[in-house]
Formats: sequence, structure tokens, C-alpha cells
Amino acid sequence: MTDLPDAVSSRLEPLERTLETLETPSVLIDADIADANLRRWQERCDKAGMANRPHIKTHRSVAWALRQVELGANGITVQTVGEAEIMADAGIKDLFLTTMTFGPAKLARLGEVAKRADVAVVADSREAVDAVAGAARSAGAKIKVLVECETGAGRCGLAHPDEIAGLATYIASQDGLTFGGLMTYPAAGKRLQGEQLLQGAIAACKAAGLDVPTVSSGGSPDMWLDDGLAPVTEYRAGTYIYNDRSLMIRGTATAEQCAMTVLATVVSRPTPERAIIDAGSKALTSDLLGLNGYGMLQEHPEAVIYQLNEEHGLVDVSKCATPPQVGDRVHILPNHTCVVSNLFDRMFIVSNGKLVGALPVDARGKSN
Amino acid sequence: MTDLPDAVSSRLEPLERTLETLETPSVLIDADIADANLRRWQERCDKAGMANRPHIKTHRSVAWALRQVELGANGITVQTVGEAEIMADAGIKDLFLTTMTFGPAKLARLGEVAKRADVAVVADSREAVDAVAGAARSAGAKIKVLVECETGAGRCGLAHPDEIAGLATYIASQDGLTFGGLMTYPAAGKRLQGEQLLQGAIAACKAAGLDVPTVSSGGSPDMWLDDGLAPVTEYRAGTYIYNDRSLMIRGTATAEQCAMTVLATVVSRPTPERAIIDAGSKALTSDLLGLNGYGMLQEHPEAVIYQLNEEHGLVDVSKCATPPQVGDRVHILPNHTCVVSNLFDRMFIVSNGKLVGALPVDARGKSN
Repeated sequence: MTDLPDAVSSRLEPLERTLETLETPSVLIDADIADANLRRWQERCDKAGMANRPHIKTHRSVAWALRQVELGANGITVQTVGEAEIMADAGIKDLFLTTMTFGPAKLARLGEVAKRADVAVVADSREAVDAVAGAARSAGAKIKVLVECETGAGRCGLAHPDEIAGLATYIASQDGLTFGGLMTYPAAGKRLQGEQLLQGAIAACKAAGLDVPTVSSGGSPDMWLDDGLAPVTEYRAGTYIYNDRSLMIRGTATAEQCAMTVLATVVSRPTPERAIIDAGSKALTSDLLGLNGYGMLQEHPEAVIYQLNEEHGLVDVSKCATPPQVGDRVHILPNHTCVVSNLFDRMFIVSNGKLVGALPVDARGKSN
Repeated sequence: MTDLPDAVSSRLEPLERTLETLETPSVLIDADIADANLRRWQERCDKAGMANRPHIKTHRSVAWALRQVELGANGITVQTVGEAEIMADAGIKDLFLTTMTFGPAKLARLGEVAKRADVAVVADSREAVDAVAGAARSAGAKIKVLVECETGAGRCGLAHPDEIAGLATYIASQDGLTFGGLMTYPAAGKRLQGEQLLQGAIAACKAAGLDVPTVSSGGSPDMWLDDGLAPVTEYRAGTYIYNDRSLMIRGTATAEQCAMTVLATVVSRPTPERAIIDAGSKALTSDLLGLNGYGMLQEHPEAVIYQLNEEHGLVDVSKCATPPQVGDRVHILPNHTCVVSNLFDRMFIVSNGKLVGALPVDARGKSN
């Protein structure tokens, strides 16, 4: 018996293992927590009248993407053409690709996806617009292009309203393309400052005679704040499905809202201070995100994972009242969930405290 | 036409792309350089009378493992049971697993591998010995166990000759096990200091009536030095097949001996100082290894990859005389090759400057 939604339960692969015999390291997903996280955010978007376009690069899973759409998402966000292909194959009809595509082979694949799903992409240069326009025309498909705006995160994007409106006009002039609006990834804690640029860019586009149908923002750290949302019509959040140690420490999520853990085993206790676990950078990645340590041992929150080799985590257990012993199994809350899901072919799904099956990480490794 | 060894050329998958149309990011391996690296190291081991037991976790490839054995390796080193299974399936008969195994399912799999290949493992505790002894007895197989010694790297291992000899005696007393000798992963630059412990441990084992058939050391940074090698009978090197930016900067390898690059495209030039490439932490990993930047652009060595998002690298091009432009393709020398090969399902093989096929990364993701 499970309370899981059909989108998930119908895709579960059967298991030969129990929670007690599962090999380590393995990724566990508490699907009850994950589904509650999805429902809570959809309700918030519905109340705010904001379109929800979740980023699937956290879970990389067809089952969860379909569940997000079923709950009311207006479409999904992907970051590579390979991810778009997987999700279009699964029947998702509205895809926003938030990276720019170059090179004939990848552009041809993008054009093919645009023949079977509504595809929007971003651009911050005429070269990027020309590339996607060629793909659209070759495929005989329409592709929507949003101008990427730089609002303080220091990534891609144009930072001046006139340049933004200029590129929007260029997009609107291309056969095969439509101008879709503005997109930004705001710097955490600086969304209010980004609002000014977006308002200016909207005004400049309107002055150039262009409607701005969508203003798309994103980012999990500030997702529950209202600051800077005024011009935003659509929100792209990813990590909120699982949450992680980074979001917990920033106060975006509680410990009880974290759905992903990495199950590991203590394989060595070479000194009283040091424990070695069989989860290293191949399980947790070396992402620190400004935190102290590479994850949190739920059974031993005082312990610090201070170094990773590929297969091993080195843990300072000197502050633990009852330090873990050789053979103990521990649950690690990772710093950053998105990168963990890219390292495993399957996630093990827990519901009501029981292991109920495995889900493939369908879009794992789809880096191009 | 290719000069590649059969072990590699016979396993190449055909391609639909050329070097010019290959999607980015992709991993390129110059197989001529890689094969020369393998040959040079085997010659060194042969001359020194030292057994060569290469670590396959750099390439994770059956083709390259078979080539290493063909050139004279005495066997291979693996770091997970999953890697051991892949390599035993490929017909490699002598496997050294340098991590400790716990949990019934993984131990049962280890026992199965030991039925079809000679398997050696390490242990630094009675618990670890008991676990592998149970696996050997259940499978009706013999497993060799080496005592892991801590010689300054601060990982697993025992650090006192008497403890080492005590555990060796315990191993030798177990049905299903044989005592295989001593193993260490030395701290880079401290191998001479480790020699003292190894010599003491050998003496203690001999005093306890135990022969020490193998003393296994490893590590690529110091692999060409003689310091500390006196008691070593076997060497485990991994990275030497491809080399990387870390080994180049440490002086272990030259730029011309680096066989792996990540092919990427410049997707944005938002400011005169900043370029964005489509290789981020999903292509390069966040491993810094103490270096400045996440890799080196071969076409623009003055550029600094100062930040990674998952799909994007942020590059400071302010020092470049001719900075890269949107759409340019660049080759990145990664900081750390081993972790890159774990992120891609296939590597693209270049020989004589031409793309000749793809090799699957057979053991990618085999984390348990």
C-alpha cells in the first residue's frame, strides 16, 4: 500500500533489496515529503496568480515531471537539449530551455523537439538568436525566444533595458521565432534590485512596440519571498522538490521538508576522531555552496564531513557524544540535491517509512 | 586507418558526428597520447622490477583496462564491487579492491566475483575482516586481504606496526582468507616518511611468523620518484593514462602528455571580461585540488574558469589578448580526469588528430 501519486507509483521498478539490505551509497527519496513539497509550492503559485514552471534538473525524472504538470505546472524548465528530448518523449508539451544552443547537431535536435512540443529558449546575443532561428526554420517549427537579463547573479544576460529591447526587436523580426518575453536568474537576496532592471526592460520593449507576454524568474533560495516579484509572471524553482542542507541552513526549508538522503556505511574508524564513510565526491559531489562540510549525517549532526575522496567521506566525529562505529549505516543530507541526482542511475523511493521501489533518473548525464 | 591497439579499436562505437559537429560538452581522449602514457609507465615498472597494478577508476573503461593488462600489468585496481564486476565480466582475472565492503548484498556480490577472478581486498579492522571472511566462505571462494596502512594521507588504515601485524595474524587465521601483505595510499610528497612505517610493519609481520608477499603503494603525483619505494613491490597509478591539469602543474606530466580534454562552446559574452562556456560542474566537477580555476582553456591559457554552475563555466577573459567569441569551440584541460570520466556515458576517441569513434565508460556510476 502506498499513498503515492500514480505518476510516481506506476513508474516504480521492483526491488531485490530491502531498506536494510540496500547497497551503499544509495540515494533515498522520501516521496511523501517530496510530493508535499510539490503541492505546497503549487498552492503558493496558484494563490499568487503566478505560473509555476518547475526546473526538472533537480530530479531529472519523468515521473516527477509528470506529477508537477498534473498538479498544475504550466510546463517545465530544462537546461539541456538532451533533457528536453527525454521530457518531450514522456509527453510533456511545454518546455523552456534556459541555456543557449550552438552547433549544427544540437540545433538540429532542438528543431526536432520543437516539432512535437512547444519550445521556448533564451538568448542574450544576435548569434544565439541566429542559431535558434536557423534551427526553427530548418525544422519548419516555431520557437519562442525570451531575452536573458542579467540582474546581479553575474551569469549570462543583458543588463541594459535598451539592449534588451533591441534584442527583443531582433527576435521578433526573425522568421521561425516569436518574442516570448524576459527571463532572469536573480542573485539570491538581490531580487528586489533585479526588479528595477526588469521593469525598465519591460518599458523599453513596450516603447519599441513589443508585448512582453512572460517575465520568468527563478531560484529556490528566495522562492517564498515576495520581494522583487512584482513584474514576474512565471517562476522556475527546482530544488524545492527535495530541498537540501543548503536550503535548510538558509531557512528556505525545514529539516522535515528535506526528501533526499544518501544512505552510507561507516567503513573505517582509524582514529577516535575520524570516521570514513563510503560516500565521497562520486555520491555527494565537492559542492560546498559556502557551507562547512559536504553534508550532514542525520544520526550524528555534530559530525563534520571535512574532506571527500571519490568513494570516501572523511568525517570528524570528535564532537559526537556517541560516535558511529564500523558497519553503522547513516543517512546524509547532501549540500546540493541537483548534482547528487546526476550521479546515480536510480533513486530509491521511500513512502510511509518503507522502501517501495526505484525510479530511474531518466535525464541523468544528459549534458548536451 | 588508426594506429590504435586492438583492445581499443575493436571496441570503438561508430559515430554520426565529426570533430566539427560533435555536441558540446563532450570528452575527447587522444588515444595516441594515452597509449604512450601507458607504455612509458609499464617500461618504468618493468625496469624497476615493480608490479604495475593500474587503477581503472580514471578511465572506467574495459578497453583501456585490457590494454593495460596486455602491456604487462599484473592485474588491475578497482574501488567498488560494481567496478570489479564490470572488469571480471570483461575477463580480467586479477582484481584488487582498495575499499572495504559491508552489508549483505554487496558482500554476496563480492563473493560471486571471487568465484571467477582472483580477488584481493583491504582491511583495517576486525569488523572488515569478518565481513569479507563471511563473503568468502558463503561463496566457497578464497579472498586475499591486505592490511591497509596509514602513512600520512589521513584516510583509512592502521598506523602502528604492532596493530598491523596483529590484524595480519587475524586475517591469516580466517577460513576463506589469505594474508596478502600491506597496502597504503601515501600522502603526496611524504612517501619517504611512509617507508618507515611500512618497513616497521614488515618486520612486525615477519616477527609474527607471517610472510609479506605484497607491499602495494600508489598515487600519481609522486609516481616517477624513487623516494619511499624501497619496500614497495607493487604500484597502483590511475591518472597517468590521461594526466590532467593538476598533474601538469605539479610537474608529474607535461602538457603534451595530457590526453583528456573537454570540448565546450562559448555560449555568451555578457561583458568584455566574462565569457560563459557550456561546461559546468556536470562536465568538470567542482574539484579544485588546490588550483586556481576549474580547468584550463587550451586556446586561451590566460583565461580563468572562476565559477561553475551545473551547465555553465564562468570565465574571466580579461587577460586574453584575443578573447574567445560567442560560438567558438574550446578545449578544456580538466583539473582532475577521474571525476570527469564518471560524468559521461562515452568518451570520444581521437587518433592522429581525427575522431575515430566512441568508447563507452563501462564502469561509470558503479558507486557500490
